[in-house]
Amino acid sequence: MSVIPLGRGPEFDRIRAIARRLGAHAAELGDDCALVDVGGTTLALSTDVSVEGVHFQRDWLSPQEIGWRATAAALSDLAGMGASALGVLAALVVPPVEKPALFAALMEGVGAAAASTGGKVLGGDLSRGDALSLTITVVGTAERPVPRRGAQVGDRLWVTGQLGGARAALEAWKGGRTPAPGARERFAKPVPQLQAGQWLARQGATAMLDLSDGLAGDAAHLAAASKVGLVVDIGALPLHPDVLREAFAVGETPGVFAARGGEDFELLVAMPRTFPGTDEFPLSCVGDVHPGNGVAYFEDGFELRLDGYDHFA
Amino acid sequence: MSVIPLGRGPEFDRIRAIARRLGAHAAELGDDCALVDVGGTTLALSTDVSVEGVHFQRDWLSPQEIGWRATAAALSDLAGMGASALGVLAALVVPPVEKPALFAALMEGVGAAAASTGGKVLGGDLSRGDALSLTITVVGTAERPVPRRGAQVGDRLWVTGQLGGARAALEAWKGGRTPAPGARERFAKPVPQLQAGQWLARQGATAMLDLSDGLAGDAAHLAAASKVGLVVDIGALPLHPDVLREAFAVGETPGVFAARGGEDFELLVAMPRTFPGTDEFPLSCVGDVHPGNGVAYFEDGFELRLDGYDHFA
Repeated sequence: MSVIPLGRGPEFDRIRAIARRLGAHAAELGDDCALVDVGGTTLALSTDVSVEGVHFQRDWLSPQEIGWRATAAALSDLAGMGASALGVLAALVVPPVEKPALFAALMEGVGAAAASTGGKVLGGDLSRGDALSLTITVVGTAERPVPRRGAQVGDRLWVTGQLGGARAALEAWKGGRTPAPGARERFAKPVPQLQAGQWLARQGATAMLDLSDGLAGDAAHLAAASKVGLVVDIGALPLHPDVLREAFAVGETPGVFAARGGEDFELLVAMPRTFPGTDEFPLSCVGDVHPGNGVAYFEDGFELRLDGYDHFA
Repeated sequence: MSVIPLGRGPEFDRIRAIARRLGAHAAELGDDCALVDVGGTTLALSTDVSVEGVHFQRDWLSPQEIGWRATAAALSDLAGMGASALGVLAALVVPPVEKPALFAALMEGVGAAAASTGGKVLGGDLSRGDALSLTITVVGTAERPVPRRGAQVGDRLWVTGQLGGARAALEAWKGGRTPAPGARERFAKPVPQLQAGQWLARQGATAMLDLSDGLAGDAAHLAAASKVGLVVDIGALPLHPDVLREAFAVGETPGVFAARGGEDFELLVAMPRTFPGTDEFPLSCVGDVHPGNGVAYFEDGFELRLDGYDHFA
């Protein structure tokens, strides 16, 4: 067995096919981070690629924001494991027509995001290539790593922060509108939740991941990895204030819009039923863990079907 | 100071500009690997991007060979530090028109190269994008790391293996000829010299790096980082047997052809003058360390000017 159970979708079929082909050459794949024990310390490692035209558009973001966002997305994988950051490595591919200053501007954003979590830029690589891309690899340590697979029947599900802000900006851009400043900030400068992740790990989190594919995609991964069923109350989701306008524009309820919104980089965590919540940071109870499999979403008493966001589609 | 002294060239000007911009947000940049102390163990980390049309052509190599070569190139940075491999992370970007099987074939090569050094595939990421690229991040540990900066006046310079084989294949392809099988193997399946690197570290190596830019480029880095001058005897370079034909085709002497050939992934190492050589693996004495700066190349008693290979040109 070299891949943890993942939710449905072609992106995850590809990961399963790769794990089969690698066989014993691979560690267990599919969690937020790889974990490696080195002399009594547990290292957490993850790599994350951002490609122009797939993950971002240059007319939406400054080079510094592109560097920050790619790095924050990778650091968020450390947060989802309850790890702290040592540093990042950045491999940049830039079209040959660009001025060399673009490298430095992108790396300024990479460095600022790393520094915001106490990490450093440890190294990197530069190449020319037809499309702009950034591959950020993050290295951290976890005193008590929290993978996706430990949720227990009876646990409650919580999410940090607010959901739907990044998607609100994305839908505005796609619709030719100017995003609200708060939504744009959520998309351009997401804040990886490393301190919340470590705090939740210390409080006994049983399963955790970061919301990169959106709650509707990532909850399915947590359910599959933990071999449990989840019930999520869409009405309990903490909504970013700019969701309302954009949900109306695309014809979804605000809760569904937020649940289907990717790249908020908040955390979804299962906590024992005895966990009372906290005032340390915004944390909302959004559901609980049941026997069975898959995720059932309820809104106003009705059950909904929701799919996540496929980064590869 | 956040970048070690590097040789001349636009690629290295870019690294210097980035280091200036990052300031305190960066660790010391520019060596083969970043070194991070974690609970008494020294981690060595490096990231390396390979882009289709820049670093390889798909009509030259199979997908498995592309995966192997990109991974071997990254693992070679661990060898250059005297480190051993824990594992690799692989971020793949593949054009959307490709079949999903391409991901698995590339990753098969990645996994085989990692396994050949005792490492595993720890994790990865997949994305679509206009150009095929692989970013491989390697993680290892070093009991006695050997950076580029310790060469002492009086040391002797050595290289492992044979040089010029990868360039012989490249020049054949560029000239529309079929590479000799041995040269093609050197290009398609380079062998990172991790065991030699660790052995040389234990024997007291004072400075070391892997030959990715070619001896003519990398010797300049070793000289700059160590703040010494090097004298290299081109006639003493160990030549790959297929160099002769291709050197003749491009009108260079075999020794110069080999010195200017990139991506052999052998090691260049400075050893104390008392080091007697070894029969453990092929190792040739090619020069020595003097006061001053830069690299002087001699062939048949004449001094030559040589430049390395610019990956960004």
